[in-house]
Amino acid sequence: MSGPSLRHECGVFGVIDDVDAARTCFLGIQALQHRGQEGAGIVTREGDALRVHKGPGRVHEVFDDGALRGLPGSAAIGHVRYGTAGGSAPSNVQPFVVVTRDGPVAVAHNGNLTNAAVLRAETEERGAVYTSTSDTEVILHLFAGSEQRTVINRLVDALRRLEGAFCVVMLIGQRLVAVRDPWGFRPLVVGRRGDAWIVASETAAIDAVRGEVVREVEPGELVVIEDGAVESIRPFGRQPRKACIFEYVYFARPDSTLFGYDVYGARVRMGEVLARAFPAKADVVVGVPSGGEPAALGYARASGLPFAHGLVRNPGVGRTFLDPSARSREGGVRQKLAAVSGVVRGQRVVVVDDSIVRGTTSQAIVRMLREAGAREVHLRISSPPMTGPCFYGIDTPDRDQLVAARMDVPRIRALLDADSLAYLSVELLREALGMAGPGTCDACFTGDYPLQPAVPGATAQVPLFGPAPGAGAE
Amino acid sequence: MSGPSLRHECGVFGVIDDVDAARTCFLGIQALQHRGQEGAGIVTREGDALRVHKGPGRVHEVFDDGALRGLPGSAAIGHVRYGTAGGSAPSNVQPFVVVTRDGPVAVAHNGNLTNAAVLRAETEERGAVYTSTSDTEVILHLFAGSEQRTVINRLVDALRRLEGAFCVVMLIGQRLVAVRDPWGFRPLVVGRRGDAWIVASETAAIDAVRGEVVREVEPGELVVIEDGAVESIRPFGRQPRKACIFEYVYFARPDSTLFGYDVYGARVRMGEVLARAFPAKADVVVGVPSGGEPAALGYARASGLPFAHGLVRNPGVGRTFLDPSARSREGGVRQKLAAVSGVVRGQRVVVVDDSIVRGTTSQAIVRMLREAGAREVHLRISSPPMTGPCFYGIDTPDRDQLVAARMDVPRIRALLDADSLAYLSVELLREALGMAGPGTCDACFTGDYPLQPAVPGATAQVPLFGPAPGAGAE
Amino acid sequence: MSGPSLRHECGVFGVIDDVDAARTCFLGIQALQHRGQEGAGIVTREGDALRVHKGPGRVHEVFDDGALRGLPGSAAIGHVRYGTAGGSAPSNVQPFVVVTRDGPVAVAHNGNLTNAAVLRAETEERGAVYTSTSDTEVILHLFAGSEQRTVINRLVDALRRLEGAFCVVMLIGQRLVAVRDPWGFRPLVVGRRGDAWIVASETAAIDAVRGEVVREVEPGELVVIEDGAVESIRPFGRQPRKACIFEYVYFARPDSTLFGYDVYGARVRMGEVLARAFPAKADVVVGVPSGGEPAALGYARASGLPFAHGLVRNPGVGRTFLDPSARSREGGVRQKLAAVSGVVRGQRVVVVDDSIVRGTTSQAIVRMLREAGAREVHLRISSPPMTGPCFYGIDTPDRDQLVAARMDVPRIRALLDADSLAYLSVELLREALGMAGPGTCDACFTGDYPLQPAVPGATAQVPLFGPAPGAGAE
Amino acid sequence: MSGPSLRHECGVFGVIDDVDAARTCFLGIQALQHRGQEGAGIVTREGDALRVHKGPGRVHEVFDDGALRGLPGSAAIGHVRYGTAGGSAPSNVQPFVVVTRDGPVAVAHNGNLTNAAVLRAETEERGAVYTSTSDTEVILHLFAGSEQRTVINRLVDALRRLEGAFCVVMLIGQRLVAVRDPWGFRPLVVGRRGDAWIVASETAAIDAVRGEVVREVEPGELVVIEDGAVESIRPFGRQPRKACIFEYVYFARPDSTLFGYDVYGARVRMGEVLARAFPAKADVVVGVPSGGEPAALGYARASGLPFAHGLVRNPGVGRTFLDPSARSREGGVRQKLAAVSGVVRGQRVVVVDDSIVRGTTSQAIVRMLREAGAREVHLRISSPPMTGPCFYGIDTPDRDQLVAARMDVPRIRALLDADSLAYLSVELLREALGMAGPGTCDACFTGDYPLQPAVPGATAQVPLFGPAPGAGAE
Repeated sequence: MSGPSLRHECGVFGVIDDVDAARTCFLGIQALQHRGQEGAGIVTREGDALRVHKGPGRVHEVFDDGALRGLPGSAAIGHVRYGTAGGSAPSNVQPFVVVTRDGPVAVAHNGNLTNAAVLRAETEERGAVYTSTSDTEVILHLFAGSEQRTVINRLVDALRRLEGAFCVVMLIGQRLVAVRDPWGFRPLVVGRRGDAWIVASETAAIDAVRGEVVREVEPGELVVIEDGAVESIRPFGRQPRKACIFEYVYFARPDSTLFGYDVYGARVRMGEVLARAFPAKADVVVGVPSGGEPAALGYARASGLPFAHGLVRNPGVGRTFLDPSARSREGGVRQKLAAVSGVVRGQRVVVVDDSIVRGTTSQAIVRMLREAGAREVHLRISSPPMTGPCFYGIDTPDRDQLVAARMDVPRIRALLDADSLAYLSVELLREALGMAGPGTCDACFTGDYPLQPAVPGATAQVPLFGPAPGAGAE
Repeated sequence: MSGPSLRHECGVFGVIDDVDAARTCFLGIQALQHRGQEGAGIVTREGDALRVHKGPGRVHEVFDDGALRGLPGSAAIGHVRYGTAGGSAPSNVQPFVVVTRDGPVAVAHNGNLTNAAVLRAETEERGAVYTSTSDTEVILHLFAGSEQRTVINRLVDALRRLEGAFCVVMLIGQRLVAVRDPWGFRPLVVGRRGDAWIVASETAAIDAVRGEVVREVEPGELVVIEDGAVESIRPFGRQPRKACIFEYVYFARPDSTLFGYDVYGARVRMGEVLARAFPAKADVVVGVPSGGEPAALGYARASGLPFAHGLVRNPGVGRTFLDPSARSREGGVRQKLAAVSGVVRGQRVVVVDDSIVRGTTSQAIVRMLREAGAREVHLRISSPPMTGPCFYGIDTPDRDQLVAARMDVPRIRALLDADSLAYLSVELLREALGMAGPGTCDACFTGDYPLQPAVPGATAQVPLFGPAPGAGAE
Repeated sequence: MSGPSLRHECGVFGVIDDVDAARTCFLGIQALQHRGQEGAGIVTREGDALRVHKGPGRVHEVFDDGALRGLPGSAAIGHVRYGTAGGSAPSNVQPFVVVTRDGPVAVAHNGNLTNAAVLRAETEERGAVYTSTSDTEVILHLFAGSEQRTVINRLVDALRRLEGAFCVVMLIGQRLVAVRDPWGFRPLVVGRRGDAWIVASETAAIDAVRGEVVREVEPGELVVIEDGAVESIRPFGRQPRKACIFEYVYFARPDSTLFGYDVYGARVRMGEVLARAFPAKADVVVGVPSGGEPAALGYARASGLPFAHGLVRNPGVGRTFLDPSARSREGGVRQKLAAVSGVVRGQRVVVVDDSIVRGTTSQAIVRMLREAGAREVHLRISSPPMTGPCFYGIDTPDRDQLVAARMDVPRIRALLDADSLAYLSVELLREALGMAGPGTCDACFTGDYPLQPAVPGATAQVPLFGPAPGAGAE
Repeated sequence: MSGPSLRHECGVFGVIDDVDAARTCFLGIQALQHRGQEGAGIVTREGDALRVHKGPGRVHEVFDDGALRGLPGSAAIGHVRYGTAGGSAPSNVQPFVVVTRDGPVAVAHNGNLTNAAVLRAETEERGAVYTSTSDTEVILHLFAGSEQRTVINRLVDALRRLEGAFCVVMLIGQRLVAVRDPWGFRPLVVGRRGDAWIVASETAAIDAVRGEVVREVEPGELVVIEDGAVESIRPFGRQPRKACIFEYVYFARPDSTLFGYDVYGARVRMGEVLARAFPAKADVVVGVPSGGEPAALGYARASGLPFAHGLVRNPGVGRTFLDPSARSREGGVRQKLAAVSGVVRGQRVVVVDDSIVRGTTSQAIVRMLREAGAREVHLRISSPPMTGPCFYGIDTPDRDQLVAARMDVPRIRALLDADSLAYLSVELLREALGMAGPGTCDACFTGDYPLQPAVPGATAQVPLFGPAPGAGAE
């Protein structure tokens, strides 16, 4: 998949006891840029004061040197997000900074609460004033409204009410706090660099700041770091582990280690399994850059066919497409990718991608390969047909836009004009990952949702904030 | 006074049942631009949804045609403010839009609560989550947290807790709401245009949209407009009227009618009274544009001396001054004003201004007139010496920066290098206005403060939001 | 006239031997802002290198402190202009910087060459490459293409070919050069400040930098300043003096001394003469801010009627008007001006303006005064009916848009809905100025054009540069 | 090489007889973005008028939909360039639009004239007025100043004077003109799409607009397209072919066909030759994205070692680096690239890159691979040591910054801390390309310069234009 048809719902980063927390945080969220390209923010703490800088766009668009100089302090949290389509009032861009009886608090959140609508209604009834449509604010109101006596007890009180996927980092008082939901849908890891402690959505962000990965924040764990001491709290009852299988397929960086497994290696193995299960009589294997390339290499290795760079990225393309053609999505693909005719001309080509969402991208790719002279195009997908939306933190299209929810594989093949088409099955995907089935969430492929939204679609009734309507929950 | 040494703390505007509420509101707040040039915003309601557009800068800098097209609906409130020095997180720019159990609510506020710190601490204790340092948010938390059963009762409950100066306009449900504090510090008026109802800080804003002024919102009155019906509620106990006398002297537009009196006429009369009390042997009377010109004309009329335009504005100057000289404030005056030597050369000049704050502007003006050839310069001020700050909605400098708090009139004269200097007394000012003394607040001249801040300086302990620290209360 | 219906074609400024030439030049062109608000630029010379910063917009929009810091050097020229409506290729914004065999040359020009089309065709035929539609470039090509041996002789050679209105400042080598056409249509003066020499379109710009006015650059004089020495050269044959009478009426700043006369005093006298020639039975005299106010004061003095501020500017209005009404020009006036009903209600009002161009502004003003309660409105104009365009440096509308070219005074009065209307005659205007007739250019009132464009309308065949078509000649 | 240490000097594109020439041109120059990322522009012709839009930055930053709508017409030329570091006067951004006796002319140029200084001095002596430091303007002055009778003869006259590398596209009258220098240093091709004719620097740009490549513009050929007819003119004497070998190594897109050869295939072959000449005892082969990947794949194929993605791009990095470390260039590499420890940990790694310029990038890459766990790092470069600058259109650093000009291979290996280091020799590079030696320019590797600059360094005496000094020649 060459572009953001599926958009992750955020990445988080936090650091404490660092000489220049803002710059470390900047490098950290930049390494998480793939998890959210529509908004970015950093909050730092110096003494008792919090300072925030955030805005729509990518990390390097939001921050410059002056912005970082305006963020002094030894502790910071940062966030990247999808969902804010510009506009002058991007009230959902995180981190949030508020003042409660416990003083200033900053929070950043990756995930999606399935009981957000219920909790929101309940807190509103008690007098809560909401300034955004974000789930994150629900957590803050539960925290501020708790009748527990201590800060940590109020936080535990709030967290126990939550259902769904959430990885949260906070600055409260002199603490850096990180919490991961008991199902463990999304990744969250702890690292160190010298005296500094780091938390991040992915290990690659810790590598990017030249830190060392220490361990995962466990599902259901609340980590509190203060005065150089790390406290681990378990506020939740035990839940079955539900690690998102799609992080492996598409979202996580190839250089991250996820839930204990090397992502790049897993993707190569998916291609190997795919080759053994769905071979093709062909001359060359190409991947769709950049997500499909590791699986393409695996497919080549297992099949004995040569791997080559038959599709390349156009380095100069921004995110706005000014294509003259009516088929604008395809136009977008054509501006981003190009087929290398020296590789594919006259060849029977296996093209490997990580997933198909709407089908428009794949359709364009098949056509481009044929126009560049490919004799046959065999499409191989290193994940199962996606048949349902995600309720746990990935912003998938509605079900009726998912091509695999509307038609079976032969009809998809015909639609895409491929000579053959095959997907990995869920079983083969698990085999490639070497993971036991029950430990993963694969609801988007199987329909087997571990948790249901309490009031599905309730967010649609929330009024708009700003001329450009903000997106749904975090 | 030629510039913003004293800065008003905002103007508000609201309209309901209008065909294009955003554009009407735009024209309205543009006519209130003198009350706040550092931030502007409009919220409109269409059906149940609120949309907001706001940002730092002047009205025409914040809004363009696209912004107005993004604000559909038949009801709107708008706001102009001082106090936001730019930065990427101007969290204090109004109106605020929040969601409470009563649904989306928008609020804009002109004034300053003297018991804000107490109320803020109290609501935080009950679990309130604050997102700004603005007094306005206190009102929202009191409203959302009230245990009364109806929306209006919750609002009344909240308003009764407030002390200080406040003119508030709100959109709640299908209502446009306006409320003025029981002392009546700041102006607020009601108007009509066809079927539409309008509320505004000044009558000039109603004129600007070609509406008709109906009446003042009375001190202590809560006006609720819904379905074309206007309801008047009196939530407060009776308080002595404390109309700000400085609105007449400086702040209000000359074409407004304030507290029932014509502002321009009042300013001319101040000059007349000043001339009779403090005559000068001179050849010509000039005013400091544009605030001092009506009083200069009055001075000329009463003294029989000719009035002339001896100081003119430089039309092309922005708000940033890039003067090479070290005396930068004076440099600012020189870029904004110029003396007309054809008027003042060889003449004994009476120059009339509305007020002296720090003294730097007056000093520059006297020097400019002398350099342009004036033989004598007699400075006349159409208000009393300003000796104390305002706690009721005007952003005055600290007392130690007020020249009249540090020295007496003869020393000020010497400092400014004027041949003579005279101020109106409070009694003569009241005489000119034709107002009875007890009905006005003249604390900045007399030190007779009707209400004291509950915890003076408490806001200084609130942590900063954003790299550019937000200003104080609204 | 309240706005830019007539737009001057630029202001120029130059300084040499100054410690911070860029900042002096910034203050100087800012004081000339009224002569051109659509583009601004400064070129400085340091050693042999020239540096330029220019762009669309007003001086304070184009320059900030960083821009000035990027312009080191002890000599500078600057320019303000009308005519560039934004766009990414404002190729006509001045000063121009080019390289010729004489090294880098910078030039800024105020005026309009009547033989530009002929000279352009001639230089093109010899191989000249044009990069703009500006007359200024014609001068450069004549200079660069001259076969004379010395720099000054090449310049003289070029200047002798020019017909029309031109005030030019240049940096060539180590020289600051200023030249004024032999008819003297536009003003140009020389000043000093310490060791620095200054040239400027108006004396007010020299005052603004605290310099002293030395004298006019004479019509037909070429001034060359180098190494502290000032050389005066007379390249041209003698021509009859043709000082633009409209500079007095409208364009020049009131605090400038123009062609030896005080502008403000002249405008007051125009009002006095107007009152004696065209009295009105009325109660009060008001001026249209700010151009009409001096003449209104003169009218009041001569008639014995009281002067008052019956129209005031709205301080907060930018240059873009977002009025909901279809009558957009009138809407623009309503956003910029407001009537003070305390002054005009129930009164017979004389309203004085400096000129009428299209009539739309006057129409709006009469209507506003009536809506504010004026019983009668008597309009008095301190200049004659404008019946023809200017070919000498003022950007007037086409003749068919000039209301006085289309109808006589009684019909204009009816169109404007005034109770009476009178203009000054050309004779009375000259009387007010105290100038002998033959010395002035009054072609826009009389049709008596001293020079005709060689190929009228020829510039219309020049192709567009940039998406936003550049305006005509400088 | 992962970044722009070597920066190409531009790409050109032209189209005629197209329904929407601006959009076609936009897509074309976007596909040439790798040839110049610091400035972009398009000129269109509609009837006799030319319109231009250009500015600093990348294509998608300079153009939006509004900009394209402002460029009507059926013919267009476009340009991308390096060398403009921002600033308000980017006078060197192309295409240039000028007016000569032949009417409006637009020109865009890729290359570098070795006799520019001589030609510039000569034309200045004849009266030419230069507005930039660009070589392109020299061509225009020669053209405009020619005494030949016809447009084409004037152009031929001008072109015959030029020495060096130049690919030029022009709009003159109703013609689209393209010319390539007689040595053929830079690529230039002709294509068709329906009735439209296209010229472009690379075939990939023709593919990007779904056109068909027709043929190269021959070295020394002037192509004139008008009224659907294509005329080929040979203005120059025959010269030895000097096709830039570095286009193959680094600059051209992998999906382009260059001088008749498939670029991707050539790069794979370079890797194969490299493997055979310089084998390494290793476990895995990785390429430096994206330039080094084809050669890495070739190395893997020929050596039998597995290829893997051991270095990946960070997708979210902009062009400004805010790294905290003092070693900022290395910091830049770390922000752009990451090592995949799952691939390299415990392995002996062959890492293949296309070139080494300063050595800082390679140094950072070796260190990153070691930090990610690589046991050994063997660096292989698919081109010879670069020992000299390019005078024919590539913006190389000065010789003393080229690491291979300062030290031999063993010392470079030590500097980079690689376990082994090998470069391709010039002979092996030619073997890989299958090209005969005399037909290529390999001066940057061999010092064998086919043409010398007439006055080396002469451009350094040209004064600066604008605060941000413009870069050298095109």
